[in-house]
Amino acid sequence: MRTIRLIAATALLLAGCEVTEVTSNQTADSGPVATASAGTDEQAIRALNDRWLQLIRDRDSAAIGELYAEDGAVMPQGEPIRVGRSAIAAWWAKSMEMPDYSLTFDEESVTVSQSGDMALDRGTWQFSATPESGPVRDSGKYVVVWRKIGNEWKVAADIFNSDGQQAGNPPS
Amino acid sequence: MRTIRLIAATALLLAGCEVTEVTSNQTADSGPVATASAGTDEQAIRALNDRWLQLIRDRDSAAIGELYAEDGAVMPQGEPIRVGRSAIAAWWAKSMEMPDYSLTFDEESVTVSQSGDMALDRGTWQFSATPESGPVRDSGKYVVVWRKIGNEWKVAADIFNSDGQQAGNPPS
Repeated sequence: MRTIRLIAATALLLAGCEVTEVTSNQTADSGPVATASAGTDEQAIRALNDRWLQLIRDRDSAAIGELYAEDGAVMPQGEPIRVGRSAIAAWWAKSMEMPDYSLTFDEESVTVSQSGDMALDRGTWQFSATPESGPVRDSGKYVVVWRKIGNEWKVAADIFNSDGQQAGNPPS
Repeated sequence: MRTIRLIAATALLLAGCEVTEVTSNQTADSGPVATASAGTDEQAIRALNDRWLQLIRDRDSAAIGELYAEDGAVMPQGEPIRVGRSAIAAWWAKSMEMPDYSLTFDEESVTVSQSGDMALDRGTWQFSATPESGPVRDSGKYVVVWRKIGNEWKVAADIFNSDGQQAGNPPS
């Protein structure tokens, strides 16, 4: 059961709309550019979050892998890190095999660097599934760091963990 | 035991020296500034990591709290998020109360944004302690996102999780 719960907890995506802008300007000559692009960058990340959620519903692990940078990492709770798109896609494929797999996410804040090439996204996630051993449910928190590679935002690091025992979880 | 192990896993710090620079320049007019400051920023973060490790050895939870941004967050495995320095310092104080508490960390990569106001730091950690219930040991991975507030790098988000069962851990 423990293993299943940990695999379940791995599912980390982003959703929601609450976004915080970087408003301070510590590097004078990049300020205007950052200010002009911040809204666009946030919108791009939000759109990617929406796409990510849809890809989960579609069980499209290959396309989810493409959301990550080539050297991106998923860092699942209770499992070793996976680096690189193919390893990441394989991890997602395995996770999503669980019956009744459901994963939702809510951003709490998105902070974009002044240069518009890095963003901190943190929030919460909720998971449930019905493996043969019985229903599992878990929830927790995540950090995703986005980097702009060329003109595209990609996931550089994706890490998450559980807040603890949840109703519906078997004792671990 | 589970609770103790999860609290143990919370100890997240940074150490080590392997650093990766951002070399691409996507925002032309911030490029020269970013290039000039990147080394300095990495050195500053590395120095903070060294300081953080020393503060752990000193069991100085108040000073550890000051390493975080005012709205910074520690996101411990198996526990709710703590936001703000006083809540974070209290969490560290409680964690470090364990007998024979030991925590080490190794950076795998540090990536600084072009504007030099945000950095992604990811790596590994190792923990051990000897509570009354018997020796515990755990290891895993972390992401720390640094932001430059004024002229100082501060921890905006600090999240980590275990790689799984380790030798010396009791069954959970």
